[in-house]
Amino acid sequence: MGSPTVKTPRLYQQVAEKLVALIESGKYTVGMRLPAERDLASMFSVSRPTIREAVIALELESFVEVRMGSGVYVIESRKRKSRFSDKDVGPFELTEARALFEGEAAALAASMITDDELAQLAETLNEMACENNNDIETHEAADKKFHMIIARATNNSAITSVIEGLWDERERSVLTRRMYQKVRDCGVKPSVEEHREVYEALKAHNAQAARELMRGHLMRVIDGILEATEVEAVEAARNQVTKCRERYSMTRNLY
Amino acid sequence: MGSPTVKTPRLYQQVAEKLVALIESGKYTVGMRLPAERDLASMFSVSRPTIREAVIALELESFVEVRMGSGVYVIESRKRKSRFSDKDVGPFELTEARALFEGEAAALAASMITDDELAQLAETLNEMACENNNDIETHEAADKKFHMIIARATNNSAITSVIEGLWDERERSVLTRRMYQKVRDCGVKPSVEEHREVYEALKAHNAQAARELMRGHLMRVIDGILEATEVEAVEAARNQVTKCRERYSMTRNLY
Repeated sequence: MGSPTVKTPRLYQQVAEKLVALIESGKYTVGMRLPAERDLASMFSVSRPTIREAVIALELESFVEVRMGSGVYVIESRKRKSRFSDKDVGPFELTEARALFEGEAAALAASMITDDELAQLAETLNEMACENNNDIETHEAADKKFHMIIARATNNSAITSVIEGLWDERERSVLTRRMYQKVRDCGVKPSVEEHREVYEALKAHNAQAARELMRGHLMRVIDGILEATEVEAVEAARNQVTKCRERYSMTRNLY
Repeated sequence: MGSPTVKTPRLYQQVAEKLVALIESGKYTVGMRLPAERDLASMFSVSRPTIREAVIALELESFVEVRMGSGVYVIESRKRKSRFSDKDVGPFELTEARALFEGEAAALAASMITDDELAQLAETLNEMACENNNDIETHEAADKKFHMIIARATNNSAITSVIEGLWDERERSVLTRRMYQKVRDCGVKPSVEEHREVYEALKAHNAQAARELMRGHLMRVIDGILEATEVEAVEAARNQVTKCRERYSMTRNLY
């Protein structure tokens, strides 16, 4: 359906560029800790997820180092070369889009999913459960397979193509891959139970339940990323995560 | 988000190929009328929208001529050359995908649309109303502008990119352009009133109303295509259209 067309640099890129300018101007010097996330958010008038994306973009460019539970430190870098790709949508917007669109796809699929497709889903659930103990890449293959079976069950190739495109984007996005890596580093694994609930709703041909469970599952993926990328101490994080949810609670409260 | 990836030929293309084989085998000869749409649908075990797509694909390839109110006739053609593009999703699936995804985008946009964006929408409504009396291309520009302002009001570039991709696909698809042409030939113009209702819901920041009005608007676009591509006499069409709606009523009844 064509490449994502982004006219202006993404918000996190603008923030990252401003932080680079502050580092290069000597305002933040090597070894210094950057201000706390909430302070950066209010300094640039952006949400905290945007700050997380900017910080990880800076980390990828070797401007800073994230020390869990401590803060974000400016590091001396050999290779401060490139600027940030202006095609990278990032995991928050990508997963929000998936929550809305895959929710609707699940609702439509519930009306017409075949026994054969249900059997394929059940098999994929078993793969996911087995592979949760093994390597993460195989698990992710089963995860993608699960979501694509539902997309195809809509019998609408435009819908299938959009959902496949969002998965491709997830794999292509350096920022998204990096943030999912952090989620895995925290020991979080994709929830077989949540996928099973979606499967049960589809099996019952319950469109409304399928929509809500799929949407809820993907909104919890956003929660997982928010928690895993929290820089400050975990205790403090618990309280602060509430604020970051503000923006994404809009999607959550649409029903 | 990558091109639509279609592994097997689209259903309407398979039907079109079978009809070509029947024409080439001499089963249907030049000047003959093809069986009625409902008979073709049951002959190939497909829905009537699929037959419409196949017939228009055959028309584009100069195998047949559609005489409104009479039937589909095999014609002698100088240029029976190409096969049907296997990338063409067609207007039914495309518009169904738009109904689901743009409905959700409108609901999300309702929470956070700005006064500036609302002003742009109001201006676009005026353009649409003025241009309904003038050339259709300018109208379609205003139509697309309206939908893209709402997509961008989600503040989610993945969502914006998907919706823009579906519009691009609509412009790229020969089949879709041809079927919209038929809608215009019937004198149907995009409804300013339906767009105005969506605008009012957004202005009231009513997510549920915005979703339902946007979805309803696009499902009525599907109705318009079904009616405009009806080959048999209008009176008969009225009764038969009911059947064609079966498949798309699934989407309609999801709430």
